[in-house]
Amino acid sequence: MAKPTPLSGFPELLPAQRYVEQQVVATLARTFELHGFANVETRAVEPLDQLLRKGDTSKEVYVLRRLQEEDTARDKGIGLHFDLTVPFARYVLENAGKLEFPFRRYQIQKVWRGERPQEGRFREFTQADIDIVGRDTLPFHHDVEIARVMLEALSRLTFLPGFRLQVNNRKLIQGFYAGLGITAEGIDEVMRLVDKLDKLPPEKVRELLLDEAGITGEQADKALALATIRTTDDSFVAQVRALGVESDLLDEGLDELATLVRACAPLATERTRIEADLSIARGLDYYTGTVFETRLDGYESLGSICSGGRYDALASDGRTTYPGVGISLGLSRLLVTLIQRGVLTSDRSVPSVVLVAVTDEGTRAAADAVATALRGNGIPCEVAPSAAKFGKQIRHAERRGIPYVWFTQADGSGEVKDIRSGHQVAADPATWQPPTQDLRPQVVTTEDSNTEGNPS
Amino acid sequence: MAKPTPLSGFPELLPAQRYVEQQVVATLARTFELHGFANVETRAVEPLDQLLRKGDTSKEVYVLRRLQEEDTARDKGIGLHFDLTVPFARYVLENAGKLEFPFRRYQIQKVWRGERPQEGRFREFTQADIDIVGRDTLPFHHDVEIARVMLEALSRLTFLPGFRLQVNNRKLIQGFYAGLGITAEGIDEVMRLVDKLDKLPPEKVRELLLDEAGITGEQADKALALATIRTTDDSFVAQVRALGVESDLLDEGLDELATLVRACAPLATERTRIEADLSIARGLDYYTGTVFETRLDGYESLGSICSGGRYDALASDGRTTYPGVGISLGLSRLLVTLIQRGVLTSDRSVPSVVLVAVTDEGTRAAADAVATALRGNGIPCEVAPSAAKFGKQIRHAERRGIPYVWFTQADGSGEVKDIRSGHQVAADPATWQPPTQDLRPQVVTTEDSNTEGNPS
Repeated sequence: MAKPTPLSGFPELLPAQRYVEQQVVATLARTFELHGFANVETRAVEPLDQLLRKGDTSKEVYVLRRLQEEDTARDKGIGLHFDLTVPFARYVLENAGKLEFPFRRYQIQKVWRGERPQEGRFREFTQADIDIVGRDTLPFHHDVEIARVMLEALSRLTFLPGFRLQVNNRKLIQGFYAGLGITAEGIDEVMRLVDKLDKLPPEKVRELLLDEAGITGEQADKALALATIRTTDDSFVAQVRALGVESDLLDEGLDELATLVRACAPLATERTRIEADLSIARGLDYYTGTVFETRLDGYESLGSICSGGRYDALASDGRTTYPGVGISLGLSRLLVTLIQRGVLTSDRSVPSVVLVAVTDEGTRAAADAVATALRGNGIPCEVAPSAAKFGKQIRHAERRGIPYVWFTQADGSGEVKDIRSGHQVAADPATWQPPTQDLRPQVVTTEDSNTEGNPS
Repeated sequence: MAKPTPLSGFPELLPAQRYVEQQVVATLARTFELHGFANVETRAVEPLDQLLRKGDTSKEVYVLRRLQEEDTARDKGIGLHFDLTVPFARYVLENAGKLEFPFRRYQIQKVWRGERPQEGRFREFTQADIDIVGRDTLPFHHDVEIARVMLEALSRLTFLPGFRLQVNNRKLIQGFYAGLGITAEGIDEVMRLVDKLDKLPPEKVRELLLDEAGITGEQADKALALATIRTTDDSFVAQVRALGVESDLLDEGLDELATLVRACAPLATERTRIEADLSIARGLDYYTGTVFETRLDGYESLGSICSGGRYDALASDGRTTYPGVGISLGLSRLLVTLIQRGVLTSDRSVPSVVLVAVTDEGTRAAADAVATALRGNGIPCEVAPSAAKFGKQIRHAERRGIPYVWFTQADGSGEVKDIRSGHQVAADPATWQPPTQDLRPQVVTTEDSNTEGNPS
């Protein structure tokens, strides 16, 4: 077999890199569980008719077919899920009788999209989602909860650059447009065009608003003015009021967003900030209230790495409707980019804290016994694969980042050497403990010379 | 959307059931890491030509195609991996320059096979693999290590029925057949036919050996006698010797297997046993030495739930050969069957230890503050979704299996009630701790009235 080459869009990590991802997953899971979220995994496949209900994603779906099977009719087939929301909504409907509502779950799984690969966009990638779903109703305080839980989770990822969680509310936008006198049909079109502000200059968007949405220059100016408002506290309320637009839905949206920002403000740190950003609309997604996006400091071109919001109908079986609020962290988009740029890795390619040296093959059993004693105290370790010269065994540890090598003397006593310092002491495998910071590999960060936000 | 129905062969778990699986995965990962195995994840897809190299699995492969794409030519396409060995071998070749050998990794991921679903056989299922792979050579003591690590992992799964790890050695079988005078070509055929002993009576297999393999009655009798040898210590050596067959390869196989059994014997318990079973051959797989299978007590009809062995060439790029030894635990085969029969579940559907009651919506922030204090001490908790009557809030906790409800008095002081006993005490959220056994959900087992091995 010739040396295989990577498949574009299907990133894989080396062991030291994978350890970073494992640490992030463990931190997220731990935070979500502290907040009472139960873990769920759904199958990787869904019926195609479910996957294709949102028209604009159809091009991205991977369809499955058994090799020996006749080509499946399109509506009967199955495909790989492209997010965790569609399968979760299906899971809720399928198991509604066995779940307790409001139902809080987290889900960390791979998803697949047949998109053209580019930086931060993969064909296989991992998402970490939290959602809370109610039966018939779901109080607004759960919107606040979702934002707080994700802020807390992000703030625990201390080896990552800072985050900016941007929040807005569809009721605020829609109520504002309605207050401007824009028709119900026009509102979606205006929202779609204003959403282009991150790609087009304001004058161009204004032109489109007049030409394509058919609104007046005054309406367009106010819509654009709304989208420039950005505050880290609830002072956006006064700025919106100053635009002189009124509607009940706008009041409701302002009230919800102000509540959310005030409740999250105490969690904000220099690294993890929250801001009301009234330009955020989440494009074509069917959110009905709160919307979230998140930017990674210095990596703004990656787009939002953590998005979500409130759906009034996450799922419905015709009789019962299940409203939900959730947020989805793009784990691969966040990590793989930083790992591939060499910004993030870990200091060991193995979990081992200790390499137990082997003096000769006849005493391998003694080395195994030392390792067993260390493991009994929770210390990951491995026994040298061969009774090579000690210098070679030490290099074996060094190349893997293993910090300690254990030597057993002829009289059965032990010595342990910290190969970073060269310091060697007598030690008993039944009681020896390494310093806590050596028990697990450490995540290592290096400066990224290409960071967009930090021109040198 | 009508109520969705499950997809046959794609099992999903409810939250309390999923917790069992999470515990098993965590225990396996912890054990593997204690032994210095690094975690690796490979992409879910491989090029079809790689997946189809083993002819007999071709019918099981799921082929992928993007919905908008013209039908891909078969040799250019990609498919879902059907095990973790093929992708691992490819990963080793692709990254050989960046890995340290012997390379020890564990991998716990979903795999897919388009087989007809039946009990214990799924179309999507999770495998947990450990492998050690060397460059050019790999000492035999790693075979021992793989067996010991998996035995230790299985012995830690204390809520499962017992296991019997069955070991054999291809050198022993092949050397024995060669010593009988069977030709090199005939050996594979004899092995294939003797492997049918678990489905056919010995007389029938003897008939096939004479008719299809063309060996003599005496050769057939000895081959069948070898396959009946089964011991929990190294006494199989004497039993094989008593059959009066000799060859160097047989000696090597006997020596390796005796070493393995002796090294594993100290790890055996009443629940986790090891035995030399000279009928085990692993059918058509390309093992070259040690082979493993594992039976779950009372669920023998599931077949082997943990199999593997030694490959002299796990991977090769033409210049360098990478020998390996590994074992693969069928996590879904093991767990989903027990979960679906109701034998295994957990006592909570959420991680929460405490439900913080809400007296009225005006004091929700106070309840949030209690929850934040508890979480700061590592106690998972959630705040009641509504300020319903306390009886209703207690039932909310009960239905989820949450053991404690926290009440905040008008004067700000707190009381915590164990709703299982009704016992209620004053408590400070900054210092209160539940008993350790309440900190996490507990796995609950119930007797299986249908267990094959335990007729009532």
